[in-house]
Amino acid sequence: MFTLAIHGGAGTINSSLMTPELEAQYLHGLSLALNAGKSILTSGGSATDAVVAAVVELENFPLFNAGKGAVFNHIGQHEMDAALMSGSDLKAGAVCGVKHIKNPVLLAKAVMQQSEHVMMAGDGAEAFGKMVGAEFADDAYFHTDQRYQQWLDIRDTDQFQLDHSAASNKKMGTVGAVALDSHGHLAAATSTGGMTNKRFGRVGDSPVIGAGTYANDATCAISCTGHGELFLRAVVAYDISCLIEYKGYTLKEACDLVVMKKLVDIKGEGGLIALDAHGNIELPFNSDGMYRASVDVNGNEFFGIYR
Amino acid sequence: MFTLAIHGGAGTINSSLMTPELEAQYLHGLSLALNAGKSILTSGGSATDAVVAAVVELENFPLFNAGKGAVFNHIGQHEMDAALMSGSDLKAGAVCGVKHIKNPVLLAKAVMQQSEHVMMAGDGAEAFGKMVGAEFADDAYFHTDQRYQQWLDIRDTDQFQLDHSAASNKKMGTVGAVALDSHGHLAAATSTGGMTNKRFGRVGDSPVIGAGTYANDATCAISCTGHGELFLRAVVAYDISCLIEYKGYTLKEACDLVVMKKLVDIKGEGGLIALDAHGNIELPFNSDGMYRASVDVNGNEFFGIYR
Repeated sequence: MFTLAIHGGAGTINSSLMTPELEAQYLHGLSLALNAGKSILTSGGSATDAVVAAVVELENFPLFNAGKGAVFNHIGQHEMDAALMSGSDLKAGAVCGVKHIKNPVLLAKAVMQQSEHVMMAGDGAEAFGKMVGAEFADDAYFHTDQRYQQWLDIRDTDQFQLDHSAASNKKMGTVGAVALDSHGHLAAATSTGGMTNKRFGRVGDSPVIGAGTYANDATCAISCTGHGELFLRAVVAYDISCLIEYKGYTLKEACDLVVMKKLVDIKGEGGLIALDAHGNIELPFNSDGMYRASVDVNGNEFFGIYR
Repeated sequence: MFTLAIHGGAGTINSSLMTPELEAQYLHGLSLALNAGKSILTSGGSATDAVVAAVVELENFPLFNAGKGAVFNHIGQHEMDAALMSGSDLKAGAVCGVKHIKNPVLLAKAVMQQSEHVMMAGDGAEAFGKMVGAEFADDAYFHTDQRYQQWLDIRDTDQFQLDHSAASNKKMGTVGAVALDSHGHLAAATSTGGMTNKRFGRVGDSPVIGAGTYANDATCAISCTGHGELFLRAVVAYDISCLIEYKGYTLKEACDLVVMKKLVDIKGEGGLIALDAHGNIELPFNSDGMYRASVDVNGNEFFGIYR
């Protein structure tokens, strides 16, 4: 028995601006990621390996804001964050502000497995990447015309934006995966390019253990997407874990309270993917849409974009 | 009514290696910080201003590992992290990996009050500092002979160390403050130079909201010190808050469970300072010592170093 869920970001997704072709492309990207994770879980692989494999596919797919396809920051660079946590031993790895790492989630995995640290930032994280043989990519690799245009639209302003807009169907801000493997272990991974036109080395919730990413076999695995600042202040992922552990909530009760009530109260737009060791899967969001997919304990697959 | 607690780090503090003169200096540093916070609280100032004022004194005091006196990283620089959280509105600000900011906690305050972000890293955080008029300092300002010697001892190795050692009374890794003001509001602040000889842009728990720093009027204010990686994985500060909110624990019960049991089980050496809106103060640590001081609701002051 295993389960797997993935997301490609949440926010304003206006179906009237979505073409059938574009929608098909998104679903194709989700499908590639779901299959990558499933193939590991089917053969008895670990939840950790499965979420990493799924997120690598999402990072490589140019329509999602992570890895190739990451948004441009204020000075026209790509600054990416990623995190990974293993629920069996509560080990974790995270990187923030890396600019030349092809798959930031793989570097987060190396931090978890090959260092004594949990979080590494910027050039230092890239130096670690060199040491462990991470694959580097130049600026050209991360360039996509669509992201470039989004940046041109606002680069001469002080605006920054989550990877979506009320005016059009711009892409969403984060990717992530959570899995339960056949050994009963959970894992979670998240990766993002952050906000278009972001400045000042801004870090959101994605690479922060407890905020955007958390996994614990005893409670749940969570990967968030949304307005990172609010998710950071609300310590969203660990809040759900604590509601289960300390208050006896079900996964669904905990997700509903945090996403549909607590986050809404502080105007924290977004969503998350969550699962527990009993096979439950929740994909809650308080925004118009969230690119998401899952496979349940019976092998049933689900794909969704809109509410 | 107000309360205030501060710490100057936890770890191995061997009284047999401590001279009366050095001990007096530490107590003097703690006293400067306690008085700075008290003077704000006495005149009706906010908990936020009080913890910032206390941490500024600790940063300026060369014996503590934050601001002046911060440890050297692997390439002989000072890389500092700080965070601040206000319990009344759950607003927060944090910086990591800043190298030229005289008082990182003041920059964290600017992030909280003058930006739409929560966390900023590295050069980007310093660029924000320039914009808001933060005071910069050059490498010479942060140099202290003692830290330099600690670094020389291990710089040609792959070792890094928390700011303490079993062999001698080297200084501890973090400073912090928590306060309850006369308006019933809580706040927490933490600042650190991290680990001697650290590499790879390593970030510990100090600047991570929920891990090393957290404040919520409804539960508690927490500032941690210790082995950051374990504190990050255990989401220590928010764990205490959740035990109070979701499980009905008292502040003391929550602190005892997290510091003396959960952290001990994962070999997470360190401690924290904690207080709640009812006037309770807890200063738990599982290491040999923690530089600490507090003033309670009756104005009684406490200073401690050893267990």
